[in-house]
Amino acid sequence: MQKSLSVYDSDGSTFAPLVVIELVSETKEEAIAWLLNRVRDKQQDGGAELLVEQLTPGAQGTEKDNPNVYVVGASWQRLLYGAEDVGLFKEFKDGSMRGFTYANKHNFKEFQGDGDGFLSMAECQYIIKHGLDNLRAKDEAHVPGYPKMKLYPGKSVIRRMQSKGILVQVFPLHEKEELKRLSFSWFKKIKLSFQPLDDIRHYFGEGMALYFGFLEYFTLALIPMALIGIPYYLFDWEDYDKFTVFAGFNLVWCTVILELWKRLSASLAYGWGTLSRKKAFEEPRPGFHGVLGVNPVTGRAEPLYSNAKRQLRIYLLSVPFVLLCLYLSLYVMMIYFDMEGWALMIHDEEPTFWTGLLLFIPSIIYAVVIEIMNLIYRYAAEFLTGWENHRLESTFQNHLVLKVLVFNFFNCFASLFYIAFVMQDMVLLRQSLATLLITSQILNQIMEAFLPYWLQRRRNKKAHKRMIKTMEDKELPLSEQVKLEADMSTYLGTFDDYLELFLLFGYVSLFSCVYPLAAVLVVLNNVTEVYSDAFKMCKVFKRPFSEPAANIGVWQLAFEAMSVIAVVTNCALIGMSPQVKSYFPESETQLILWVVGFEHFLLASKFILTFVIPDVPKHIQIKLSRLEFESLEALKKRSIKLKKKQVPSLNLKLNFFVVC
Amino acid sequence: MQKSLSVYDSDGSTFAPLVVIELVSETKEEAIAWLLNRVRDKQQDGGAELLVEQLTPGAQGTEKDNPNVYVVGASWQRLLYGAEDVGLFKEFKDGSMRGFTYANKHNFKEFQGDGDGFLSMAECQYIIKHGLDNLRAKDEAHVPGYPKMKLYPGKSVIRRMQSKGILVQVFPLHEKEELKRLSFSWFKKIKLSFQPLDDIRHYFGEGMALYFGFLEYFTLALIPMALIGIPYYLFDWEDYDKFTVFAGFNLVWCTVILELWKRLSASLAYGWGTLSRKKAFEEPRPGFHGVLGVNPVTGRAEPLYSNAKRQLRIYLLSVPFVLLCLYLSLYVMMIYFDMEGWALMIHDEEPTFWTGLLLFIPSIIYAVVIEIMNLIYRYAAEFLTGWENHRLESTFQNHLVLKVLVFNFFNCFASLFYIAFVMQDMVLLRQSLATLLITSQILNQIMEAFLPYWLQRRRNKKAHKRMIKTMEDKELPLSEQVKLEADMSTYLGTFDDYLELFLLFGYVSLFSCVYPLAAVLVVLNNVTEVYSDAFKMCKVFKRPFSEPAANIGVWQLAFEAMSVIAVVTNCALIGMSPQVKSYFPESETQLILWVVGFEHFLLASKFILTFVIPDVPKHIQIKLSRLEFESLEALKKRSIKLKKKQVPSLNLKLNFFVVC
Repeated sequence: MQKSLSVYDSDGSTFAPLVVIELVSETKEEAIAWLLNRVRDKQQDGGAELLVEQLTPGAQGTEKDNPNVYVVGASWQRLLYGAEDVGLFKEFKDGSMRGFTYANKHNFKEFQGDGDGFLSMAECQYIIKHGLDNLRAKDEAHVPGYPKMKLYPGKSVIRRMQSKGILVQVFPLHEKEELKRLSFSWFKKIKLSFQPLDDIRHYFGEGMALYFGFLEYFTLALIPMALIGIPYYLFDWEDYDKFTVFAGFNLVWCTVILELWKRLSASLAYGWGTLSRKKAFEEPRPGFHGVLGVNPVTGRAEPLYSNAKRQLRIYLLSVPFVLLCLYLSLYVMMIYFDMEGWALMIHDEEPTFWTGLLLFIPSIIYAVVIEIMNLIYRYAAEFLTGWENHRLESTFQNHLVLKVLVFNFFNCFASLFYIAFVMQDMVLLRQSLATLLITSQILNQIMEAFLPYWLQRRRNKKAHKRMIKTMEDKELPLSEQVKLEADMSTYLGTFDDYLELFLLFGYVSLFSCVYPLAAVLVVLNNVTEVYSDAFKMCKVFKRPFSEPAANIGVWQLAFEAMSVIAVVTNCALIGMSPQVKSYFPESETQLILWVVGFEHFLLASKFILTFVIPDVPKHIQIKLSRLEFESLEALKKRSIKLKKKQVPSLNLKLNFFVVC
Repeated sequence: MQKSLSVYDSDGSTFAPLVVIELVSETKEEAIAWLLNRVRDKQQDGGAELLVEQLTPGAQGTEKDNPNVYVVGASWQRLLYGAEDVGLFKEFKDGSMRGFTYANKHNFKEFQGDGDGFLSMAECQYIIKHGLDNLRAKDEAHVPGYPKMKLYPGKSVIRRMQSKGILVQVFPLHEKEELKRLSFSWFKKIKLSFQPLDDIRHYFGEGMALYFGFLEYFTLALIPMALIGIPYYLFDWEDYDKFTVFAGFNLVWCTVILELWKRLSASLAYGWGTLSRKKAFEEPRPGFHGVLGVNPVTGRAEPLYSNAKRQLRIYLLSVPFVLLCLYLSLYVMMIYFDMEGWALMIHDEEPTFWTGLLLFIPSIIYAVVIEIMNLIYRYAAEFLTGWENHRLESTFQNHLVLKVLVFNFFNCFASLFYIAFVMQDMVLLRQSLATLLITSQILNQIMEAFLPYWLQRRRNKKAHKRMIKTMEDKELPLSEQVKLEADMSTYLGTFDDYLELFLLFGYVSLFSCVYPLAAVLVVLNNVTEVYSDAFKMCKVFKRPFSEPAANIGVWQLAFEAMSVIAVVTNCALIGMSPQVKSYFPESETQLILWVVGFEHFLLASKFILTFVIPDVPKHIQIKLSRLEFESLEALKKRSIKLKKKQVPSLNLKLNFFVVC
């Protein structure tokens, strides 16, 4: 319970600022007044019924500061009604999770008194964001003062102002006290422990908490592999005879951990109330454009864009572009092999310590080039997917993920596949894998945590200069805090973090039988990743809006696809091992048929396993069924009651023909 | 609109009899009186609120007739409320399908006047069955008059009486006029046309209509294959060089038709209102037993049976039993090959016309033995699955289907796989396939249609003797009709029909490239199957209760699994063809690697295709989303209205601290 900062409303009452809206400094007065009125209007009148005030610049305010910064809050009633609107699930008195309703509020476990403290700040901010996003134009033809900024009934006002550039940003505020506590339990403590997932979820929302949960789970799941890998590395360095056992372990491991994660994630999501939450109807994404028409689902005016045109764009431009990029990546790979051969030649001619070192140079260069290509491609893919003009953010994301995954997979693993199956050179494979893994990890850590932190510090120093009077960090006035946070970088979502995990998962599941230390390296990387990610979330970035999520979405699929590829790859590696080959000394055909048969058996078992292991643990399944059953029963009772009212005596009306 | 037969209620009003309940003739009076009262009681008092009368024996009634036959009907109101209870979907005024509610009844398209004719007779019967099944014991400790027939609060009365054997059967009555019309348009017309699926659904319900729809679809889908197969058969009889093209066609065909069927079935189910219908909570199946406890979902008293015990039964008895049966089947197969070799030896020694004929004898005997083994195993599997004591009918069915499928697949196809891949004898494969296919089809038609029809005729003759006075079929009095129908065989569900289709699909998709006439034979079989199945449904069996179904359920999965096996088999057959082998004259290893690579590519494409093709056609998806969106909006409006009522002035309460 923190009374923290507060602003005075126009009525003189105070409210806690939750969300900041920043408009460009030259926004016309009438547009601002109109927007604020719409935000303050009652919901019955089509407003958002929120509290909003201009941020009064602090004592240190300079002329350069943007005056058009507004803080938004809401009354507790508004927030509670909003919780019902967005379909928040909360813990009921009996311990089950139920959709919150205002009428039923006192039956929820943590509801006390007026209900202050019932919703977490992240939830409040999510509700406010939902309210702002759903602020729709009524009969305004355009934003007042901007005749070119067309509106039509039903268009989201905030989205239009954002896409036209008057609205710079909308972001939720950090909570100093809470953040300090979270940082301490998360990454400042030295002692080894699990991450405080519930607290993370409380502060950053479910989507983020699931990412960190997955990161932690993945790291723990790697530990047995790392433990097995160490003796392999220590004792059998050049004797890769025994790697069949390791490959077999790999196979089972990557199937089982993904299945178990599904169950764990369902448990987490149930506890957080997102498992059975219904998805709201999705609005068109901000960048979507088209001819104004009528949406066949909602019946609302909305831009429409022909699906055929989009398909044309995808197949005539995006697909060829991706193929071209793949070809380019192949070309770079070939250059790498040339360099590799050249370095080997020099080393063979006159082997010294320096030429020995030179052997690693091509791999390192290649690893750096791969990272750069991935980065450039990432931007190209984003541009291209935007240009494909998908209506929904979710389809946009799916197409983007697909593009990026295919390229990154190819870019990172093509050379390894080539070495393993075309050159069949296990020593080179091991060396390349090690160099790729280590280099890309170092690069990633720099790009992800160090660079943003350094940029942040430079900015902070500037800010600090401006406010010499205020004590360090302690009691910043609201206006200063808002300005500090407004300048922080924006966190762009978990995409890149998951992508990194996906590639690491690939290195481990595909080839770790050749280089057993891979798992150890990945575990080390993940441990630092937890800390650097936690640090960047708490210190480097603006607070992101919490995103309700029931699972890791399309990434589950991506990881599962990788695990299927891993089965095939590991079987092929097993088939190529001298140990297995020695069983079929006379006939290579026999060997291949056995390996293929074994692989088919494994793939079949994998699919059966996926099918047999229930995705949701039984005790949660029971709770969900109970809820569903209760709502069904309630419906029946209501209908019987209704019947009682409408037909007081049914017996009187028996005297008619029943006709089929 | 047919006034048909009617019975007088105890009040003197008439009602149309819909469902028949038959109790054993020596049932005690008090049990009957109690049951009838419970059936007639109002729903508020825990009754079923149905109309029920004893069937007055006709003039021809003999002493041998069972007097305890009751006909059940219901008032139109009761049926309409029941339609709401069971969650029936009906066409709304705007053409969409919506859950029927009594309050909203006039907004449904076909609702006129009182609502007579709004529900089909099959729907009425389903509603009555639902009402009877949900008749639950209140505080009775046992069925009156039968102290051993224990009841507990919440136990379904009908199910208990059925499992204890006092209730012989509950079945819906046929509708003479409607049936005549249906029979005419279905199988009595000579002209070629599609089946009247909507009428079938109207009379027999969605489950049955989907079966016939699938049968028809499958037959149509086979026609291109049959057309391609004929020239293959005519011109390339011994030249199986070209079968790679056919195998390739097979591959694409079996994937595509299954995907398209999913979409077609979704369209059908949408039109019939079962696509978005919610599944009701499933009661324990009648045979389920256990220690009385509390169901964790419903909180009702219910027998419980430990899952661990069930798993033990499955893994310690069922699985070994299935494996034993598979071994037996393998043993029989080996005997068949011995016989085959023996016949060949005789033929080779002294080839005459008779020894040429002898060559076919082993295959024919084997085909008959396979059918007999399938039949015996079917009963064993049913017994075993019953003994596993599954709580739900659906899990029971799944376990039964799994057991039967594995065995039938093995039993029917093991010899073909052995011939194809171990003996690599394509001529024998073709011959075995032809004999198996033709013999099993002939046997099936006899077992399925001719035998029941013959039995039925024998029974009918007896019945006819008893009623010399009545005109032929025309105006049978109710009591006679009921007795006639009560004596008809009971239709045991679509299981065996789907199983037959599944095996035919297997023959065609797995091996038809070797014997292109297979598709032609299957098409011919399916055409007769349509007629014989239609005939048996209309003339041979009791009318079954209609079963709402949105898809063909577990069979879709079974057919998809078969199509995956077909990809693997066809790739292997392609790899074995001399044509393909000639491309790799020097190295068999190369050939195998290419085939395996191609197969993996095909499997991957298949899974991607399954993923990419949406299961529900777009226009139906839009309609479903619109419904969902509307219900969401309605909910929101209600909550805003509620809010208006509860908090007349929100502004008064602004003056408090917002605390996080």
